[in-house]
Amino acid sequence: MTVPTIGVTSGDPGGIGPEIVVKTLARAATLPRAAYVLFADPRVIEAEERRLGLRTGCRALPPGGPAEEGVFLAAVPGPDGSPAVGRVTAENGEASFRAFEAAVEAARAGRLQAVVTAPISKAAWALAGHPFPGHTEYLAGFYPGAVMTFWSERLKVALFSHHKPLREAAASVRADALARFLGDLQKGLSRAPGGPYRLLLAGLNPHAGEDGRLGREEIDEIRPAVEKAAAAGIPVAGPYPPDIVFLEALGKKDVMAVALYHDQGLIPFKLLAFSTGVNVTLGLPFVRTSPDHGTAFDIAGQDVADHRSLAEAVRLAAAFSGTGS
Amino acid sequence: MTVPTIGVTSGDPGGIGPEIVVKTLARAATLPRAAYVLFADPRVIEAEERRLGLRTGCRALPPGGPAEEGVFLAAVPGPDGSPAVGRVTAENGEASFRAFEAAVEAARAGRLQAVVTAPISKAAWALAGHPFPGHTEYLAGFYPGAVMTFWSERLKVALFSHHKPLREAAASVRADALARFLGDLQKGLSRAPGGPYRLLLAGLNPHAGEDGRLGREEIDEIRPAVEKAAAAGIPVAGPYPPDIVFLEALGKKDVMAVALYHDQGLIPFKLLAFSTGVNVTLGLPFVRTSPDHGTAFDIAGQDVADHRSLAEAVRLAAAFSGTGS
Repeated sequence: MTVPTIGVTSGDPGGIGPEIVVKTLARAATLPRAAYVLFADPRVIEAEERRLGLRTGCRALPPGGPAEEGVFLAAVPGPDGSPAVGRVTAENGEASFRAFEAAVEAARAGRLQAVVTAPISKAAWALAGHPFPGHTEYLAGFYPGAVMTFWSERLKVALFSHHKPLREAAASVRADALARFLGDLQKGLSRAPGGPYRLLLAGLNPHAGEDGRLGREEIDEIRPAVEKAAAAGIPVAGPYPPDIVFLEALGKKDVMAVALYHDQGLIPFKLLAFSTGVNVTLGLPFVRTSPDHGTAFDIAGQDVADHRSLAEAVRLAAAFSGTGS
Repeated sequence: MTVPTIGVTSGDPGGIGPEIVVKTLARAATLPRAAYVLFADPRVIEAEERRLGLRTGCRALPPGGPAEEGVFLAAVPGPDGSPAVGRVTAENGEASFRAFEAAVEAARAGRLQAVVTAPISKAAWALAGHPFPGHTEYLAGFYPGAVMTFWSERLKVALFSHHKPLREAAASVRADALARFLGDLQKGLSRAPGGPYRLLLAGLNPHAGEDGRLGREEIDEIRPAVEKAAAAGIPVAGPYPPDIVFLEALGKKDVMAVALYHDQGLIPFKLLAFSTGVNVTLGLPFVRTSPDHGTAFDIAGQDVADHRSLAEAVRLAAAFSGTGS
């Protein structure tokens, strides 16, 4: 088959995941040519199609995998009865975890080139006994070099650390770990569409420490990491003042900004790309993308959820899989 | 006199300060009606007017102060000879410090309602023996309740802390200091144009700590401070996830976002308002505004400096002084 096979999970059944997945796949003709395999509870998808008046036209996944492009369904049955909508429940957590697990298993076995994940609730995962802060952390258990990146038209950002308290994140900025991270990132970017990319690294402190007057990490940890990475041929510059680096990266198609902690990268990214941003996990043997928003329990089941970020996640997954762009 | 008297300093003579001051005051007819008193070396201003082909039309400041609107010059002679342009020097540091000091003295004596400051070089100040990180810290020596805020059309931001290493800034988030800060900010905003304002407070940790799973400061320090401030009648809400709070504040004219550290506030502010942002020091008996950029030594003396941020700083100073808006 000349088109890639791309898995799509529908996320927490109580959130907007099923709605945005159906809205996106019902318009598959507007997406890159691929075989899309939906990992979900068939009853949830059917109910969602009925509610929205949309049809994904999905067929049961053949045992040998898709032989042609189109939308297929890999059934991952959830609990009996309708899912609780707009609430955190262990049942919904278990259902979304199992669908994700099935998609990852297929990707690890080489049957998918990419996995697109709709939002899960980490509170629901925890209730179901799967205490991962998110998809990325689950994947990092298999692939320690996994790197969290964010993609939009105007700005691309990588995160050195993500779900850590700020003080812990600041303390984790060490030369060896940062140099290793830059290597992982560069490797992950080597198969990214639109490359090669240059990396612009943010400092940790105001004004990137101002020669040590506002903090020592730039001198003691960050510059040594940059020198080590540069010596290994990685095109990285910095550390830049954190309040300047995103302006520098803005609008430059071949540049990715590197943030040292969650909010340093996500404050600018969400401000610029709230509806269309895509989260991409690099450093896996397949690519994993997802929309840059959560389950939005407060608007679930109302047909008002915006599916653009998920559609962008699907397009980017296809582009990473060597088609579509 | 029915118009306010507003001091304007020309900043470091080696930077773009004199150029943007002349560009702004030469177009005084486009500014709010006021008596503008320029604190600068007369030779620097004359040379700049000649170089740019512009005239501020400034007159010598009468001993009793301005009796009418227009542009006046309070001479603060610098060293002999032309200033070194594009470089950090002790002479330029001394000159910009003395002009600022003279303007602050006039404001403290009640002869100015506002002071607008062009950018200084803190490295030059340090060389000249004045080791302040900036104008705000100098003013905070007289007025411990001074608060640093940033104003633009789409976003307004206050900083709880500014020129501190990140780890120190994180450690300084304490309930009592934060409650006191919110009180100082609210007091400072009471005379601001366009108010009253609501405050949206950012958390410190990713997702505002997620109920303690990603950090305890929101529970142990920030919420108690918010409760104390709210009990005192301050309209403050939060803590919000840091990557959401600026989106919440965006475009809302009666909202100021409160950031807990330098880059948390200045990353979004500079991204949205790079050319027209204004820094406003509240909590003084007068108002002090300045453009949201530095000396730009690399483009000094080339007639390419953008004076829009300084012009906005002048307009906002006038608005705070009860006119012009």
